[in-house]
Amino acid sequence: MNDLSRLAIHTMTTKPWDLPTACAKYAAAGVPGVGLWRQWLDGRPLTESKKMLDDHGLKAVSLVRSGFYPYLNASEKQAAFDDNIKALDEAAAVGAPQVVLVCGAKPELSLPENRRHITEGIASLVEHASKVGVKLSIEPLHPMYADCRSAVNTIGQCNDMLDQIGDEWVGIAADVYHIWWDPTLEQEVKRAGKRIIGFHVCDWMTPTADMLNDRGLMGEGCIDNRGIRQLVESAAGFADWIEVEVFSTRHWATDQDAYLAKIIEAYKQHV
Amino acid sequence: MNDLSRLAIHTMTTKPWDLPTACAKYAAAGVPGVGLWRQWLDGRPLTESKKMLDDHGLKAVSLVRSGFYPYLNASEKQAAFDDNIKALDEAAAVGAPQVVLVCGAKPELSLPENRRHITEGIASLVEHASKVGVKLSIEPLHPMYADCRSAVNTIGQCNDMLDQIGDEWVGIAADVYHIWWDPTLEQEVKRAGKRIIGFHVCDWMTPTADMLNDRGLMGEGCIDNRGIRQLVESAAGFADWIEVEVFSTRHWATDQDAYLAKIIEAYKQHV
Repeated sequence: MNDLSRLAIHTMTTKPWDLPTACAKYAAAGVPGVGLWRQWLDGRPLTESKKMLDDHGLKAVSLVRSGFYPYLNASEKQAAFDDNIKALDEAAAVGAPQVVLVCGAKPELSLPENRRHITEGIASLVEHASKVGVKLSIEPLHPMYADCRSAVNTIGQCNDMLDQIGDEWVGIAADVYHIWWDPTLEQEVKRAGKRIIGFHVCDWMTPTADMLNDRGLMGEGCIDNRGIRQLVESAAGFADWIEVEVFSTRHWATDQDAYLAKIIEAYKQHV
Repeated sequence: MNDLSRLAIHTMTTKPWDLPTACAKYAAAGVPGVGLWRQWLDGRPLTESKKMLDDHGLKAVSLVRSGFYPYLNASEKQAAFDDNIKALDEAAAVGAPQVVLVCGAKPELSLPENRRHITEGIASLVEHASKVGVKLSIEPLHPMYADCRSAVNTIGQCNDMLDQIGDEWVGIAADVYHIWWDPTLEQEVKRAGKRIIGFHVCDWMTPTADMLNDRGLMGEGCIDNRGIRQLVESAAGFADWIEVEVFSTRHWATDQDAYLAKIIEAYKQHV
């Protein structure tokens, strides 16, 4: 995509940069969208973060992240609910139309139990989401995270869940890292249709040295980013932001100005 | 399962032991089955390995492994075919009724291309499998291996493939490590029915320190081994061997006699 008008970068992608730096650098490079991680809001009033984005002509396209619904006791359940409400309020305050949900999983619980807590947890937030006008965006995570990060692992599973709890205020964030391998991807993206409200790109490295922080830039690995982008567009009608979300110890250790240029080049060449 | 009559252990599980040692130790402990990795056949005639198993009253329940079908050129394709033929012959020679297939994947190829090579590769072996009376047992691997180890990642995908190439001489090896997270597991196991010809147990550790060699013994992690065993029995009618397949640098570093006792205890308590 030579046109950068749909490009957003997650603040976590350029982790060494704080919010003022990221805003200045993204804006100067012609990147219009920001995937705003909540840690980047710390230390100043939300109105100030919002103003910083506005002053640079930047749009917060998503607030990342809340979720983590499975609980071992009532206080954990309440804490998760409270934090999700807080995230929705933060998103509304900075103008982000969606909160990305990492649904959570407890290895102490059975899979069905984890999944029940998640469905009930999301359902309990719909009323507040509609009140503040912010969508809940379920990001299915790669099955290698099913033990402790998310028991929601495929688009198909999201579709089943949305059939159950409704999809007016709940959608799906499709991240290529988590879904690229799925043999049912095409049919489930088609089934999802307008439910897909977020699209994240990066790449899968061979070998993968670390299960969390060894993602690649688009083109560095084996994921067909362009093909999946075209799939969500043609099969689901997706035409919204394309968010670059790369966790990489390797890239974080490099000069971030040069890295930002590489991100933009990778976006043009491979998305 | 207090009854050990269906218990088999993969030689790779007790990696420090060579075949003579493994045979002696398994037999002495009342373990009747062996998942025989091909490296354990090296260095002696197949007839001698077979006699060693027989003399200890042991049964080779599976030969592990061949597969690796995707290729970048004609010579790689031929080499994979030859090695699979060799594995079928080896299995027949040691009395193993199935060869476990790790299907392979090349990060340089697209997923559809990898999957086409796999389907065609397996189909090309059916004639020889029927000739020597050994089944080809497709082991879907966890999606975290989709880049370079196997582009076959779910039971559902195996079912689709077997619908296409037939299931008289091709079946499925269901390993809990690879399939435990799958939201469609119950329906696809039911759909598979008699196609499931192998069942492997172990556990998923939290955290997982290494993507290959940090499996747990049953009960050490979050997998519901007993529940999945009951599922393959009730939904698919599976009543054959239960194979303990644990790759663990941690366990390999311990005293293997004590470890064998732990394996048997874990089987009794958690399978």
